[in-house]
Amino acid sequence: MIMSRIEAPRDDLTGNLLDRLRAGLPAEAVLTDPDVTASYANDMASFCAAGAPAVVVLPRTVEQVQHIMRTATELRVPVVPQGARTGLSGAANASDGCIVLSLTRMDRILEINPVDRIAVVEPGVVNATLSRAVGDHGLCYPPDPSSWESCTIGGNIGTASGGLCCVKYGVTAEYVLGLDVVLADGRLLSTGRRTAKGVAGYDLTRLFVGSEGSLGIVVRAILALRPKPPRQLVLAAEFASAADACDAVCRIMKGRHVPSLLELMDNTTVKAVNDLAHMGLPESTRALLLAAFDTPDPAADLAEVGALCEAAGATQVVPAEDTAESELLLQARRLSLPALETVKGTTMIDDVCVPRSRLGELLEGIERIAGTHRLTIGVCAHAGDGNTHPTVCFDAQDPEESRRARESFDEIMALGLELGGTITGEHGVGVLKKEWLAREIGPVGVEMQRAVKAAFDPLGILNPGKLF
Amino acid sequence: MIMSRIEAPRDDLTGNLLDRLRAGLPAEAVLTDPDVTASYANDMASFCAAGAPAVVVLPRTVEQVQHIMRTATELRVPVVPQGARTGLSGAANASDGCIVLSLTRMDRILEINPVDRIAVVEPGVVNATLSRAVGDHGLCYPPDPSSWESCTIGGNIGTASGGLCCVKYGVTAEYVLGLDVVLADGRLLSTGRRTAKGVAGYDLTRLFVGSEGSLGIVVRAILALRPKPPRQLVLAAEFASAADACDAVCRIMKGRHVPSLLELMDNTTVKAVNDLAHMGLPESTRALLLAAFDTPDPAADLAEVGALCEAAGATQVVPAEDTAESELLLQARRLSLPALETVKGTTMIDDVCVPRSRLGELLEGIERIAGTHRLTIGVCAHAGDGNTHPTVCFDAQDPEESRRARESFDEIMALGLELGGTITGEHGVGVLKKEWLAREIGPVGVEMQRAVKAAFDPLGILNPGKLF
Repeated sequence: MIMSRIEAPRDDLTGNLLDRLRAGLPAEAVLTDPDVTASYANDMASFCAAGAPAVVVLPRTVEQVQHIMRTATELRVPVVPQGARTGLSGAANASDGCIVLSLTRMDRILEINPVDRIAVVEPGVVNATLSRAVGDHGLCYPPDPSSWESCTIGGNIGTASGGLCCVKYGVTAEYVLGLDVVLADGRLLSTGRRTAKGVAGYDLTRLFVGSEGSLGIVVRAILALRPKPPRQLVLAAEFASAADACDAVCRIMKGRHVPSLLELMDNTTVKAVNDLAHMGLPESTRALLLAAFDTPDPAADLAEVGALCEAAGATQVVPAEDTAESELLLQARRLSLPALETVKGTTMIDDVCVPRSRLGELLEGIERIAGTHRLTIGVCAHAGDGNTHPTVCFDAQDPEESRRARESFDEIMALGLELGGTITGEHGVGVLKKEWLAREIGPVGVEMQRAVKAAFDPLGILNPGKLF
Repeated sequence: MIMSRIEAPRDDLTGNLLDRLRAGLPAEAVLTDPDVTASYANDMASFCAAGAPAVVVLPRTVEQVQHIMRTATELRVPVVPQGARTGLSGAANASDGCIVLSLTRMDRILEINPVDRIAVVEPGVVNATLSRAVGDHGLCYPPDPSSWESCTIGGNIGTASGGLCCVKYGVTAEYVLGLDVVLADGRLLSTGRRTAKGVAGYDLTRLFVGSEGSLGIVVRAILALRPKPPRQLVLAAEFASAADACDAVCRIMKGRHVPSLLELMDNTTVKAVNDLAHMGLPESTRALLLAAFDTPDPAADLAEVGALCEAAGATQVVPAEDTAESELLLQARRLSLPALETVKGTTMIDDVCVPRSRLGELLEGIERIAGTHRLTIGVCAHAGDGNTHPTVCFDAQDPEESRRARESFDEIMALGLELGGTITGEHGVGVLKKEWLAREIGPVGVEMQRAVKAAFDPLGILNPGKLF
């Protein structure tokens, strides 16, 4: 805790803020060294401006969070809540002079109840930590964003995270039953329930999920769990075109199948993964589709889905022999984004989600956009959900290429909206897609979103400048 | 349409209202005969006051709904939206001088898309009509409230309805992807999406689900569908005590099982069903548990669950031979409420939901409460969800018994809260449980609920007097 003793030059305002914060927080929970606070300025999004925090606070208790919010309200200082800062839209980026409120030290699992199939956790619990802990009880917490080894449940709630399993198990929102939230003025609000069902009043719980810290500070969550499913078995199908792969997705989802995973990697992504990890994926394929089942008889389901892939023109269909081989295929998929990052040094990751019946048109359009802008855009997608991550690979040192990268990123969102989709399937709006939120939801939508914001945060101190 | 020509005596205010409404509605869509409008005053809840509507309007288009809301806003007239009025909390009850806005004529299924697994519907579509229509495409719309043959999707959304299938498939809220909503001032708001995932801004869709028509008028809904599961197979287990049956529920839900239905009927309910329908249910049992699976091999799952029931002390375990026998058992369960109504003429149906680990304590408490008040209280329950419907059977002509009925109804809710539960698992708050909502969510909760209400309905004209 030496760092917190190296004080930045204090102006009076900041001095007053720090004194007030320290009145209710242990010294070690208040960081002011500018080198340290600067390291809290950003999440993992590209092209998102961030300011310099006045202070970073690391509370361990609900009361400490209440103290921080009361102080912020009294002094009208903006507060930017943060989890592990693995977000991809700049929603956790600091603004100048703000209090960065990091929830990472509130990291206790308070309860796991196998009969009620719930867990009660603090917001700083890491997703993987929770997954393993409930796994010991034969239970499963499905939402599995790619950053699951480091991202926090609080961050998952703030951004309404998805993951690979959503096609069968849904997103974070569907697993949040109740919340304790510290409001902008420091009051504590409890929402929701710990029961399987409940409809007492407006669903404020769901309002907080995906609100990017702009309505209140989540300090405790009651999460729904499921019985741990059997290990899934994966099939890989190669296609001569993205259109054929998308046709296969439609055939699979039109039937009675409920795959536990249905992912697509395009040729650019396959090659990048091979280059990074020498996985021996088939580089001749234009699109690789991974389908998985965690049903009682996954091999039978895979056989049917394999036949559907062949009917859609798959050039090769290879079911994994066992769960070890399946895990290797999933690892290849999980490496997609890190691998694409190595292509040209920097990436911009889109998150456009379209009705799955329009997926083929989206992929075709992305290829056209990449050609127009002379860019490499790798696509990996939660194909079963129609949720794509077109990843623009570019050299951030080259301003002209950077400009084209940004343009292509925007054009892909425009195309997604044209196809009846959304600008963000699971990464959120943050600062990256603010203008685009307005385009998606229209003026009445923006006005009602702002009215809700004003109801919870009349002074506008909670994560200002995000969303809209 | 003769009825609408028999005019009630008009005062100036009502006259002006009617003239303005008729300026944008066909004559047949405006009902004013007091005998007719009176028939729209109530939903199916007992003990809920209702006023006399000034007018009942039956729009067929979004534009007509907008006209009605603009008129209501200009003239500051309260609007009470209604579906089929099968609700059980008085949420659809008219207030004096209100416009009853019945959505029953907006009853078109606009789209069923098997690849995207969605349906787009108007609010007046009857639940069973939609279920059958999507069934023709091999799809399923799971939410199945007992009134599914008559209740509307709009009503289901307003009250966030549940049903028998929730233990596996969840409630209405989980199937509403996007909404078109006419706001209090007549503007049209579109929320949500038609994609499988999406996190663009606050989740206003979920805010409308369960809002009992107090935030806006739902005029179109995008619903998620699932592949139609195999027909379920049902097992009946008899127990010598409710405690043993609840123990069985805990054993089943602690394991890896995901039943498609897990229902409990107490002895009072079993007898009432036999009296009504001569079903030959075992009247010697204290508690009858019905468990069902719609898995690939339901008989195997039922065998395991049967063994768990025996371990919990079941005196008899009888798996259905086939789906026909299964359907008979479900029919018995569905008859529970109508059967209990015949016991003493009138019923008051509670809807308390507790964590399923506390279900035994709740049932024990209900028995105690029934004894204290010398009342017959039949219990049927969505046991897998911990959601009970303790049904007080009483003679409404007997004021003293009516008073005891009301008291026992309240005591059951108090007990539910004590056990960490909620006053309403799926029936909503309406006017019946207004005071109880405040007790459940506390003063900060009420204040934030009111703030949300004010954001959407600043004049307070939408279904005033409901919820809080």
